Amino acid sequence: MSFLDRFRACSAPPLDSFRPFIVSGQTVGWIGDAFARRLAAFPGTFSVREAGIELSPRLSTFAARTAAVEEALRELAANGVIRGWRDEVYRVAPRWGATALLNIERAAVPLFGIQACGIHVNGFVRDGDGIRMWLARRSPTKSLDPGKLDQIVAGGQPADLSLADNIVKEADEEAGMPADLARRAVPVGAITYAMLRPEGLRRDVVFIYDLELPADFVPRPTDGEVESFHLWPLDRVRDTARDTEEFKFNCSLVAIHFLVRHGVITPEEPDYLDIQAAFLR
Amino acid sequence: MSFLDRFRACSAPPLDSFRPFIVSGQTVGWIGDAFARRLAAFPGTFSVREAGIELSPRLSTFAARTAAVEEALRELAANGVIRGWRDEVYRVAPRWGATALLNIERAAVPLFGIQACGIHVNGFVRDGDGIRMWLARRSPTKSLDPGKLDQIVAGGQPADLSLADNIVKEADEEAGMPADLARRAVPVGAITYAMLRPEGLRRDVVFIYDLELPADFVPRPTDGEVESFHLWPLDRVRDTARDTEEFKFNCSLVAIHFLVRHGVITPEEPDYLDIQAAFLR
Repeated sequence: MSFLDRFRACSAPPLDSFRPFIVSGQTVGWIGDAFARRLAAFPGTFSVREAGIELSPRLSTFAARTAAVEEALRELAANGVIRGWRDEVYRVAPRWGATALLNIERAAVPLFGIQACGIHVNGFVRDGDGIRMWLARRSPTKSLDPGKLDQIVAGGQPADLSLADNIVKEADEEAGMPADLARRAVPVGAITYAMLRPEGLRRDVVFIYDLELPADFVPRPTDGEVESFHLWPLDRVRDTARDTEEFKFNCSLVAIHFLVRHGVITPEEPDYLDIQAAFLR
Repeated sequence: MSFLDRFRACSAPPLDSFRPFIVSGQTVGWIGDAFARRLAAFPGTFSVREAGIELSPRLSTFAARTAAVEEALRELAANGVIRGWRDEVYRVAPRWGATALLNIERAAVPLFGIQACGIHVNGFVRDGDGIRMWLARRSPTKSLDPGKLDQIVAGGQPADLSLADNIVKEADEEAGMPADLARRAVPVGAITYAMLRPEGLRRDVVFIYDLELPADFVPRPTDGEVESFHLWPLDRVRDTARDTEEFKFNCSLVAIHFLVRHGVITPEEPDYLDIQAAFLR
């Protein structure tokens, strides 16, 4: 297997099997036929046509859009169409950096095919001339990707937190990390991908951070999401990311991004350029 | 001005104004009409047609191709069609990582629109919590990009050197840097671009390295290519790369790549994703 196989595993079906979700004249998501039929039950909020699903233009403010969509989604959740309600909202915008048009319940984001943001932190330790990386083994009871390898800290991006504050929150919840340590995480780039998953169409932006940790810091599972933490040398991270499916699908990409930036994957790798071209799609 | 302006300055004309240069059935370059007419004077070596310029299939080995092309190019140099003969050869391959089909004189590479490789090294110093970067000011007498800002060490990639050995050579020639220090440079990624330049069609792969330097190391101009070296704080590097054309065209991209990887350009930058998508084109 190759590094590129990890990127191929995160490649979307053609979007032409979806219909655009249009808010205020801008495409912000992609909706499949089954969910579109469900939205047709709310004609005052969603206009469902062959060409696309449009949020009613009468909903002209951020607050009005957010409230009307939430009302419809709560009914769909009550009917079992939306599962795993999180009571956490994500921003909806045509692209990263654009003004949000509304907020939407996290559990519904993949059903609308809305771009979602998250943060992943590479926690590492320098010893001698080498680097070792802290990895989390996800709990075997998690609904998504149980038992897979993950970054030491990672999470979705709620609408009401800054990226930096979200890192502090997730670092505390997932790894028992003090805030002053988590705040040392440095943004180092991003990856994007789109793929079909059990939860729907994921169109994700993952903001990647590097966090050099002191040798005496040991993360500890605190919220039950992580089974155990492991400190691996980078050649083991490389071999595992390249040759196995032990990493959660997107966590392998974040690890590969780290390996390129830290000289473990070198220009002598024949796929060197293709790997980097695959970071943003 | 914006970071993206630097990438727009390195964007190619549509390749349909060029004809493919085909070696052993594979496209390895793109040739303009004027140079194609010159190559028609060597019908035993080049088959010049509307659909493309093909190297004679009778030249079936690496050595035969290299010798026949060199013979034609030396005549074109004697006639003044090729200027600035370097007596340094570059590898010719359909893509990075593929086996070379021939070697070709460096001065002819942009005329054939062949992909060329180079190395650029970000030399930096950590002081306290901050980073400062060493930059070179190119000599005012250089034929290309005189007086522009450059990385501390940079150069084209000759066919007969490894990337690491080329860094050692360039570090010695350009900055008076000892080999043991230059060997600490870490590969951290690559950028690619294609653009029309005075010398022809540049299709470049730049392999980027980071080199943390001791605080007491001071580079010195040794071969006359560099006028002076300067140690700049990263906010000045950022502002200069974003708001001016002081950097040599490709050196601004290498500096921006560094600023993304070291948390100076952050996700709060609205063009954060577009900048990274522009690294490889």
